[in-house]
This record gives sequence, structure tokens and C-alpha cells, in this order.
Amino acid sequence: MTTLQINEVAPRDGLQIEAEFVPTEAKIRLIDALSATGLARIEATSFTSPKAIPNLRDAEEVVRGIKRRPGVGITVLVPNLRGCERALACGVDEINLVMSASDSHGLANLRMTPEQSLERFAEILAATRGSGVFVNASLSTSFGCPFEGEVPETRVLGLVERLLELGVEGITLCDTTGMANPAQVGRLCEAVLERWPEAPFTLHFHNTRGMGLANALAAWQTGIVRFDASLGGLGGCPYAPGATGNVCTEDLVHMFEQMGVATGVDLDALLAVSAGLPELVGHATPGQVVKAGKADRRYPMPAR
Amino acid sequence: MTTLQINEVAPRDGLQIEAEFVPTEAKIRLIDALSATGLARIEATSFTSPKAIPNLRDAEEVVRGIKRRPGVGITVLVPNLRGCERALACGVDEINLVMSASDSHGLANLRMTPEQSLERFAEILAATRGSGVFVNASLSTSFGCPFEGEVPETRVLGLVERLLELGVEGITLCDTTGMANPAQVGRLCEAVLERWPEAPFTLHFHNTRGMGLANALAAWQTGIVRFDASLGGLGGCPYAPGATGNVCTEDLVHMFEQMGVATGVDLDALLAVSAGLPELVGHATPGQVVKAGKADRRYPMPAR
Repeated sequence: MTTLQINEVAPRDGLQIEAEFVPTEAKIRLIDALSATGLARIEATSFTSPKAIPNLRDAEEVVRGIKRRPGVGITVLVPNLRGCERALACGVDEINLVMSASDSHGLANLRMTPEQSLERFAEILAATRGSGVFVNASLSTSFGCPFEGEVPETRVLGLVERLLELGVEGITLCDTTGMANPAQVGRLCEAVLERWPEAPFTLHFHNTRGMGLANALAAWQTGIVRFDASLGGLGGCPYAPGATGNVCTEDLVHMFEQMGVATGVDLDALLAVSAGLPELVGHATPGQVVKAGKADRRYPMPAR
Repeated sequence: MTTLQINEVAPRDGLQIEAEFVPTEAKIRLIDALSATGLARIEATSFTSPKAIPNLRDAEEVVRGIKRRPGVGITVLVPNLRGCERALACGVDEINLVMSASDSHGLANLRMTPEQSLERFAEILAATRGSGVFVNASLSTSFGCPFEGEVPETRVLGLVERLLELGVEGITLCDTTGMANPAQVGRLCEAVLERWPEAPFTLHFHNTRGMGLANALAAWQTGIVRFDASLGGLGGCPYAPGATGNVCTEDLVHMFEQMGVATGVDLDALLAVSAGLPELVGHATPGQVVKAGKADRRYPMPAR
């Protein structure tokens, strides 16, 4: 059975929306600790403008400061050509481009329609040629848009096709605001795997409405083995106040390991890193296994 | 496609562990509001000793005070013959007996081994004969015991067989402390449905480790259509401090309705009842859809 490939996104997707800047040294310690747990990939930061995302203004220092381990890919978010050049100069393994499947989310989040994003991606891909860096694209709102509602499957499939034609090597289908349900996830995953059985598809879920792990299960049942997840469930959706954010890495790893599906991750080590998050970010995190313990935890019989 | 049958357990399983007694009138209003949402069954209270569970010391007044609606079964927990007689005197539709699949959980929770529970059930069943009341039995720790660990599937199947031989009409397989994973759920559900395709099996999950909805999905995929759930995710597990409790009714209904699986429940009405829970119990509840809104919620485009 294929080992899952977990892409840890907390250092980027989680820390970018925290109220407080996490010091560079603490970020490096976090990523180094995550690297040691056996995760396949870590999205370490975003090479965006420091004005746009002040929390990640230390992108170069972070990537240059972390320990690189064989087998752990370091990926970074890249919004434009300038960001791509900065990322390549730091020696990353992978860059992650982001666009929306829906016009209104693209305009609200990136100030670009999907068409404009695709044009920009072409420039960036040209700049990566010969670098050996893997280029992934994340397709936001693949399962629905918080402004427009339903995003037709044909639209998502059409954008996947154009991304692959452009030369993008991997594609992440993102349930950006936790709208996906397991039936829909099963259908879309089956559709992309049928058309592009060789392409590495990653699934990115949020737990906004409690369906994060159920959606991951549904994706895995179709043959998907690559997942984004965020330590402690850090991250979130600005359109769902009070709701939890990204699917939690250790809860995802725990579920699959309990099912007998190998993740390659040392869950105890991961839980130890997660246990330090509340101190790092200054608030409780939504992850549940770190509070309840693993399913094989044993309790003493109560005194009579 | 079969409509799901949701058994709402918050009035019993949720309120019994709350720090404060919920006034009888408020309980009756809660159950009446739940009855109006289209739930198949409501576990209204427990006919146990007022000393054992002071929060439910008003069992008679609650059952006699609620409005009965056609199509909404009122079930109550019954721990012994005395409780059964009290329940029958109030005119309930169903009684729910509880035993553990593991010796140590039975002793810790009920002061009875499974064998002793079965003996007691025989007495209770004799008392219900001719009453027309449906007798269900809930089998705690069917997916693992917090003291002993693994509970072998053969042991669970053996107890199900003996319960059915005794004359129990429905059986609830309970993941009492949130230890089940979707692979295990799929296996046990397939095993019981293969051996007893006509018996009404209900699945009772906790969200202790975040797998509640994933487990419900896995059960439904095998053909299970009856689920216990608790409004707002009330209830909990004394052995997992800080963890969430029962799987949340409105989150479960939301997931299945989003998938196109009919639940018979008016989700908006259910969410309205759930929104009143924090005031009723004096604390926030873990349910997520009530905070985030349904997946079809639309947001205005942010101002530029």
C-alpha cells in the first residue's frame, strides 16, 4: 500500500493569519522539528510582499535558516515572478502557485481572475525552466466559492487541464472555505484520477464544518495519497468566524495510522511539536488528538 | 435511497454530565423543539436513580410534559427493572438498555460484567412483554475499551447474537470513548449486516479524536442508516478531558444532506435549536455548522 505524502502547511498557511508575528528563530525551530517527524513536504513560507503578509516578511531568513533533510521537500508559496526569483535564490525544492477556480474569489483574494492567474503562471514557469524545482499549483475554491456558490466540476477540470498544459507538475485541489462534502470529493477525485492517472494530485481540506477528515477519507478511497494539513489545525477561513481552520495534521495522521494506512510520520514526535503550538501562537489550537491522546491511550480503572 | 434515522441523544447523554441541572421546563421546551425538526427518535431522559444522575431526576415530569408527535419516537435509558417499570408507566415508545462489551468498562461504568448485564436484561425484557414498547440495547466499548484496549470483533458479534436471542429488537454499537477509526467501523458494520441483515443497527460515535463524521460516513457506506447524535455535540467522555464529546447532530445532518442523503430533518430548524444551547447549558458547544453556517452560505465580496 502506498505511503501517504503529507504536506505540512502550518508554517505558511497557519502563521500567515496569526495576530502576532512569530519570531524568525521560532519559525526555524518549528520547521526543523517538523522536518524530523517524517513529513514528506513542508510549506515553509510565502515569498510575497512583506506589506501583503507581514507575518511572513522573513521568508529568506527562514528558508536559509532551516536544516534540510533528505526526503523532506521544502516548498514555498510564490505569488509572482519576483517571488519566484527570490524563492529560487534560496534553493527551495518546490514552489506552489495559487489561483482560484472562481472569478470572484480570485478577485477578492488575489486581485486576479483565473485567466489572469494562468497568464502569470506562464511567466513564472518560464523562469523555473532548468532549475529542477518542482512546480505545483493550488486551485482554490475547487469545491465551491464563498461568494459565487457552486463551482462546476467542468470548470475545475478545464482549469486542471490548462495548468498541466502550461507545465505545472502537481495540482492541489483546495476546499478553501470548508464547503466540500465527501460525495462531492469522491466525484471530483475520481474524475481527475480517471483523466490524469499519472499526475500528482494533492487534496487540501478545511474543517470549517467538521467534515475535514471525512473528506480526506473520501479522497483516499478514490486513490488520492497526497494531502495538505496544518499542525494543530492552525489556519482558517476569514469567511467563517468561530470556525476551525485547516484540517489538522496530527488528527489526519492519527486517523490514517489507526486505519493501518502508512503515513511515514512519527505521530508521537508530531504530537510533541503540536503540544508546543499554544505557547508559540498564544492561543489554543483546534487539534483534538493532542488533547485526547491517541486512540490506543489506556486509562487506569477509576477507584471504587 | 433510504432516509436516515437520527436518534437525538442530547437530552439524556448530553444533559446528564452538565455541571448544572437544566430546569424541567427548559428540558421539555428543548425536546419539543427537537421533535418539531423531523428527528426520528429522541432519547429524552434516563429512568435511573436520582442519586446516580441527579441531572435527570425529573425523568417522569419530562416524559409526561413533552408533546408527542407522530413519527417521533420517544426513547429513554433504562438501567434496571425498576427503571423499566417507571418508563412503561409514562408511556414511552422505546427503552434503551446499556451494557459494555468489555468487562472493565462494565464494572467501572455499571458495576456489572457483560454477563451480569445480560441476566438483568432478561428480567427487563420479561417485564416489557406485551407492552408494545421497542427494546433497544446499546453496546458500549464496541470499538475499544479505554481500560482494556482492543475489544475483539468476535466478542462484539457474540454479544450481539446473545442480545438478539434474548429478544432485544435493536442494537446500538457505541464508540463510547472515540476510539473507532473508519476502517474498523467499516469492518464491524459489514460483519453485523452480513449476519443480521434485518436487525436495526444504530451507530453511536464520539468525536473525541475528530473522526466522528468520518466514522459515520464509513458506517453509511456499508448500509447503516441509523445514527445516534447529540445536538451541539453535547456529551462527552470523562476519560478524555478537553476533548469534544458525541458526534454533533446538526453537523452530521449537514454532512449527509450536503451529500444528497435524506435525513428527514429540517436542518435550519435544528440549527435554530442548537443556537440556543449555549444559553441553556452555560457554555459554548463544539458543534461547527452552527458557528460557520451551512456550506451553501454566501458572503458579500469584501470591499476594495
